[in-house]
Amino acid sequence: MAGLDETHDPGLTSWVSSANTATTDFPVQNLAFGVFSTASDGRKRLGVAIGNQVLDLHAAIKCGVWSHLPESVVLACAQDALNDLMALDKGQSKMLRLALSRGLRLGSAQRQQLAGCLVPQSDAVMHMPARVGNYTDFFTSIYHARNTGRMIRPEHPLLPNFHTLPVAYHGRASSLRVSGTPCIRPRGQILRDDCQTPTYELTRKLDFELELGVFVGQGNALGKPIVMDEAEQHVFGFCLLNDWSARDVQRWEAQPLGPFLAKSFLSSISPWVVTLEALAPFRCAAAQREHDAPSLVSNLHSSVNQEWGGIDIALEVCVRTERMRSTGQDHTISRPGYKDQYWTVAQMITHHTENGCPLLPGDLLGSGTVSGPSNHDLGCLLELTQDGKKPLQLPDNETRRYLEDGDEVILKGRCQREGYVGIGFGECAGRVVTNPHE
Amino acid sequence: MAGLDETHDPGLTSWVSSANTATTDFPVQNLAFGVFSTASDGRKRLGVAIGNQVLDLHAAIKCGVWSHLPESVVLACAQDALNDLMALDKGQSKMLRLALSRGLRLGSAQRQQLAGCLVPQSDAVMHMPARVGNYTDFFTSIYHARNTGRMIRPEHPLLPNFHTLPVAYHGRASSLRVSGTPCIRPRGQILRDDCQTPTYELTRKLDFELELGVFVGQGNALGKPIVMDEAEQHVFGFCLLNDWSARDVQRWEAQPLGPFLAKSFLSSISPWVVTLEALAPFRCAAAQREHDAPSLVSNLHSSVNQEWGGIDIALEVCVRTERMRSTGQDHTISRPGYKDQYWTVAQMITHHTENGCPLLPGDLLGSGTVSGPSNHDLGCLLELTQDGKKPLQLPDNETRRYLEDGDEVILKGRCQREGYVGIGFGECAGRVVTNPHE
Repeated sequence: MAGLDETHDPGLTSWVSSANTATTDFPVQNLAFGVFSTASDGRKRLGVAIGNQVLDLHAAIKCGVWSHLPESVVLACAQDALNDLMALDKGQSKMLRLALSRGLRLGSAQRQQLAGCLVPQSDAVMHMPARVGNYTDFFTSIYHARNTGRMIRPEHPLLPNFHTLPVAYHGRASSLRVSGTPCIRPRGQILRDDCQTPTYELTRKLDFELELGVFVGQGNALGKPIVMDEAEQHVFGFCLLNDWSARDVQRWEAQPLGPFLAKSFLSSISPWVVTLEALAPFRCAAAQREHDAPSLVSNLHSSVNQEWGGIDIALEVCVRTERMRSTGQDHTISRPGYKDQYWTVAQMITHHTENGCPLLPGDLLGSGTVSGPSNHDLGCLLELTQDGKKPLQLPDNETRRYLEDGDEVILKGRCQREGYVGIGFGECAGRVVTNPHE
Repeated sequence: MAGLDETHDPGLTSWVSSANTATTDFPVQNLAFGVFSTASDGRKRLGVAIGNQVLDLHAAIKCGVWSHLPESVVLACAQDALNDLMALDKGQSKMLRLALSRGLRLGSAQRQQLAGCLVPQSDAVMHMPARVGNYTDFFTSIYHARNTGRMIRPEHPLLPNFHTLPVAYHGRASSLRVSGTPCIRPRGQILRDDCQTPTYELTRKLDFELELGVFVGQGNALGKPIVMDEAEQHVFGFCLLNDWSARDVQRWEAQPLGPFLAKSFLSSISPWVVTLEALAPFRCAAAQREHDAPSLVSNLHSSVNQEWGGIDIALEVCVRTERMRSTGQDHTISRPGYKDQYWTVAQMITHHTENGCPLLPGDLLGSGTVSGPSNHDLGCLLELTQDGKKPLQLPDNETRRYLEDGDEVILKGRCQREGYVGIGFGECAGRVVTNPHE
């Protein structure tokens, strides 16, 4: 398997004891990056998740333990967003990963200095990890495409271009927010079933979409496509993404130019960015193409991608209704696997740039809703309830057609593989509220 | 007419004599903003167009002539992009406009100091006027919508939502460039008429789209819609926009989520931003709604908008082929009027934010292709040639179905009104080239 080095060694443990539990998302093999402040200082800085702690990268740099790293790496660590770190070349970011691994593992000579740079995650206020210049949302699950297509075109659910390119559209960067941001139920123009003309009112079909977010690392120049075999050189890492959607607004507005206000009221991401490097043990083959699909168009084919282009991430959607909250519960409603996505991340990058479109460090790509083959492993309520026709059964006789005020949606992701230490993504959570400005 | 003050007085002339010619786009009544450097210093700074000169705002601030302006205005003038100037409230930006008008008009006491701050436009290298965080492209011409809809759905060219909302989609911010940037003919996935499956190849249907660009001024918070009667408080100014398009790529990719790579290889804008304030004398009624259109949805209606929401701008598209270039010619192929757009700028702003989507200072909104009612006044070749079926006749027996390598497209815009001094937008130009990276 490509990309494995000493940082993935399953024998490694950390002197931060909470990083050694079987259930932590952040063992020393993960080393996810984020941006945090504390309530007491309010100063945004970079951090690395380790167990239930955050390693303050500003403080670590200052105490001089990494004086051997190139100046560009040190400068990138001193920023208040990950963009400069994302812009480093892979050689430099691997040097930083190795330094973090050696510093945080049991037996590290830097333990004493780094121990002074830890902040409990419970004291950290997390921020957007990067300034996202451009946000693109893909549509790479064949199950999601077919399930949603069937509602509109029962005879031809899948459009012919689905097999030849990873369909995508531009999303709204200005309404991206970090996990924890409330989802204000939006208003929009909606055509009710019993009406001739639309009205401007609160959405009644508020939905989540479970997606994987991909942060672009090094960019490309205008006019210079990125070829398949170099595509992953331009991937920094991954987060969880909830592309909140108002289905009734979407239905009325989306022809002929695609979704717009049905999505742009909020898109939430998890605060910790799991690097491409951390995911090396969990790579797998790209999903099988359907037997009657046309051959891949030349620039989207690569044998390395077919063999290793997939990523095996177990995803999960939980909801916590007001009633559950009062008893401290939540409820898992779906468990799709990312490995089932029909198009790989490398294909998303190559397709996006095949016309010369420039990607910039910190740009975000969404995978599109991740739905699996089973009717239970679907990544949005539109599919899970068939647009509200079959309400979802929750504990205590609660049901949901779409999200109600007070409902919290919590996305999770975790990678496990025999012989390796499992790593996770933390959470992407958000609670539906009525508009506090009204 | 609202918004008129001493800066619009047609009796004003400037001590910069080139600003007093009948044909200049930049008389003292315009005062358009841009970002420039010179070949000798390469330092980006803000400037104001006056006749064939640029007033260097950095230099003007330094020489102390505007010490009476608020510190926020002075600081905004000292940046290397217009974003901070765009973020000022209207009271502050009007103070700056008044100071510029008084400083540049004939008889100004500041003439001597400001004369030392002039740079000939021929020595200025123009840059993107702002860092555009988000670019949204609308679809507000009913003629364009009907002409293009007719090609796909001859019986129902206009979709029912056209009358109820200004349709829009998110565009790509990272491929916005200033006028003069070559348009590299893109490759893309194209389904040829005689083929079963698409191939990745150079577009054969490269088109321009004549649009007006709208720069957002003050933004709004997440969750806070902007109401119609306050919408223009959030508009800073306008430029010309060429939304280059690959029609064959668009045809294959655009279902179900809208245009993507067919547009994201380049969008060009003119370098000078004409402020909303400068356009006050040229405001007019919003275009008449069609007699059988449904009433406006409540939040998009305002009587002020119906009476004054339009802007009377005469637009023009010129092409200069290689053969014309050799003889120094160009040729006007279309002259649409912006006043015919079916949706106003205020309606674009209000609709965009009705779900709580935040607009940021420096965000760019495109009007969508501006086409008029006549078959000659159409804003793209798709319409002018009916998708290549009726080639456009050019001088010297040249014809065009779509753009050929070497063709330059030049967009122009000008406002004239009896009793006022005409103002213009300068040019948005770009020449089609083959990929220099190949």
